[in-house]
Amino acid sequence: MAGKEVLIVYASQEPKSLNGSFKTLTVEELKKQGCTVSVSDLYEMQFEPRTTRNDIVGDLYNPDHFNYGTEAWKAYENGDLTEDLIEEQKKVNKAELVIFQFPLYWFSMPAILKGWMDRVLVQGFAHDFPKCFDSGLLKNKLALLSFTTGGDEEMYSKKGPSGNIRYLLWPMQHGILHFCGFSVLSPQICFASEYMTEEKRKQTLTAWVKRLQTIWEEKPIQCVPEWYFGDI
Amino acid sequence: MAGKEVLIVYASQEPKSLNGSFKTLTVEELKKQGCTVSVSDLYEMQFEPRTTRNDIVGDLYNPDHFNYGTEAWKAYENGDLTEDLIEEQKKVNKAELVIFQFPLYWFSMPAILKGWMDRVLVQGFAHDFPKCFDSGLLKNKLALLSFTTGGDEEMYSKKGPSGNIRYLLWPMQHGILHFCGFSVLSPQICFASEYMTEEKRKQTLTAWVKRLQTIWEEKPIQCVPEWYFGDI
Repeated sequence: MAGKEVLIVYASQEPKSLNGSFKTLTVEELKKQGCTVSVSDLYEMQFEPRTTRNDIVGDLYNPDHFNYGTEAWKAYENGDLTEDLIEEQKKVNKAELVIFQFPLYWFSMPAILKGWMDRVLVQGFAHDFPKCFDSGLLKNKLALLSFTTGGDEEMYSKKGPSGNIRYLLWPMQHGILHFCGFSVLSPQICFASEYMTEEKRKQTLTAWVKRLQTIWEEKPIQCVPEWYFGDI
Repeated sequence: MAGKEVLIVYASQEPKSLNGSFKTLTVEELKKQGCTVSVSDLYEMQFEPRTTRNDIVGDLYNPDHFNYGTEAWKAYENGDLTEDLIEEQKKVNKAELVIFQFPLYWFSMPAILKGWMDRVLVQGFAHDFPKCFDSGLLKNKLALLSFTTGGDEEMYSKKGPSGNIRYLLWPMQHGILHFCGFSVLSPQICFASEYMTEEKRKQTLTAWVKRLQTIWEEKPIQCVPEWYFGDI
């Protein structure tokens, strides 16, 4: 939609991958709509995933006992975070929608993307207890996980060996995104991406572009256990 | 127990942290039992979490389209993985028990530890479909997640805002460890570690050492949805 700002946090090493095609088409379609689109291409940026003392410029709050959460929080408050994190936080601040595009690694996101979460979404910026979940600091923003999997849809069903795909969405969608206040849109999941025929690949990408055309009208999903685990 | 080999994969930046104390006491107690103990101190090693082309020495299997999973698998088969991964795989091969010691970051492990999973547990080494889950290549080994949390136990209960702690164990215990064939021991969870009194801290560490004294007699947990999600 014209005037909207979108950030794509993208974690694939290969531009020719399905994730790469998703990213490229997302940028194209959103620009066509008149949106402003930023892309954080994590591998291209050689984004640092490790949470270390290097993230804090200058003196530590407690040099005798390094606690990353506390130090990053204080550094955020004092403008003492390292430049790459400030840049990412600026992009998040501007964005009305953040799309995470990645291949599923081990029932979760690749380490480089987990590092983006660990380092960018610090206390003071993304949450500040009790400002979390529905009152998280990034409320009024939308987030969407778009990913490819190795296993097929049947494997990720309730009776399948990997369990319902929703189970593995919980830590990412509720534990990270909802915790920070994001309204979470329905995930875009592309099962068994490596075994797709060329035709299926085209259909999948076309369906995604079609979804993007009405993405601004979508209602967020419920980030509650019932949605993830069924009737428990 | 005398003669047993244990690997501790440790992800804390601060030796004085509770995670640091856990690690130190684990080494002490297991050595006292006559075990051989290795520690992979990931921050100290500046362990690389990113899955890139650098992990493969020499030519790629498909230089026109980089797929990390495929390339790491082929490189493993050909002995072409980078030296740091071969070292970690040797440690895993020798170990009868692998203990992961870390602070919970975002309902999961810190990125540096996720990177260890992404890079070390490659196809051919840890799994090779259909050799996964109960027939995973690391079967006959034990694994245990030992971690600290920010939130207290009530927050991580079924009705708490973070949901039952078991929900977030699923991707790690079933999706990673069980997938590779590990028999998973009951997790050691230290809730609200930053708000502990000194007395509670001592009690917690003492209880852990006591647990270690009979750890070789423990039965693995069930890695099935019912265990994680309750009666669904």
